[in-house]
Amino acid sequence: MPCPFCEIVAGRLPASIVYQDDTVMAFMDQTPMTPGHLLVIPKAHYRDIFDTPPEIAGHVMEVAARLAPAVRQATAAEGLNLHVSNEQVAGQVVWHLHLHILPRRYGDGFGLRVPPGYGHRPDRAELDEFARRIQAAAGES
Amino acid sequence: MPCPFCEIVAGRLPASIVYQDDTVMAFMDQTPMTPGHLLVIPKAHYRDIFDTPPEIAGHVMEVAARLAPAVRQATAAEGLNLHVSNEQVAGQVVWHLHLHILPRRYGDGFGLRVPPGYGHRPDRAELDEFARRIQAAAGES
Repeated sequence: MPCPFCEIVAGRLPASIVYQDDTVMAFMDQTPMTPGHLLVIPKAHYRDIFDTPPEIAGHVMEVAARLAPAVRQATAAEGLNLHVSNEQVAGQVVWHLHLHILPRRYGDGFGLRVPPGYGHRPDRAELDEFARRIQAAAGES
Repeated sequence: MPCPFCEIVAGRLPASIVYQDDTVMAFMDQTPMTPGHLLVIPKAHYRDIFDTPPEIAGHVMEVAARLAPAVRQATAAEGLNLHVSNEQVAGQVVWHLHLHILPRRYGDGFGLRVPPGYGHRPDRAELDEFARRIQAAAGES
C-alpha cells in the first residue's frame, strides 16, 4: 500500500486542502476527532519525528501557528490542541509525520487520559538525572 | 503571581535544564505524566499558540525534533507524543506556551480520550466547507 499522505500530496487521493507551500501541506482530517480537525504534514515522506529533519518539523509547526487563529475563528473554537504521535505506542496509525490541529469546545469529549499516579512530584535529584541522561544521549548522537 | 516559566528562564526558580539557546529552553516537567516528560518553551513570554510569533513556535518544534532521539534513548521509550494545550478548554494550566515531550511505553496509561462518535467520516462537501472557511479566515487575518 502506498502512503496515503504521499498520495494526497501527489494529487492521487482527494483531500480538502487548506494550505500548501514547497515543503508543507495542511488538509482536513477525514476522520475528525473534533469538528474542524486538520493535519499539517511535510510533503516529503518522513515516518515520524525521529526521522524528520528538525528544520522541516519546525516549518510544520510554523505553518500550524500561522493557521491557528484562522482555525479558531472559522470553527468557533475556544482553544485548540496540537498533537503529534510518534510510533505505534504513541497512537500513530499513518506512517508519515503529521501534526494534528484539534479545535476545542467545552463538552466536546476530547482530552488526555493521564496515568494513575499522575500528580506525583519527583525530587530534584531524579529530574536532574533525567536531564543529565538526555544531554549525554544528545551529545552522542 | 509571576509566570513560573519566566521565573525559570530568569534563574529565580529551580529547573532541571536540558537545553537552551537564545530563544528556547527545554527542562524536565516537575509533575511528569510519563517518566522523562520534558517541556520546550520560548524564553520570551507568549501566552499560547495564538500569541506566539510563528517562527518562534517553529523553533520550539525544531528543538523538540533535535532532542527527540536523545529523549527516546535516555528514557528507553518506544515512542513519544508531542502536545501543546492552548487555552483552558484544551487543558492549558500554565499561561506561557509550552510543548510537552512525552516518552511512551506500552502500558504507561497515557493516551487520548476520543469523543463518543469518533470514527464518523464526514462527506467531502462538509470537509471542503471547513477548508474554505479556514482559508477565508486566514485571508482576513
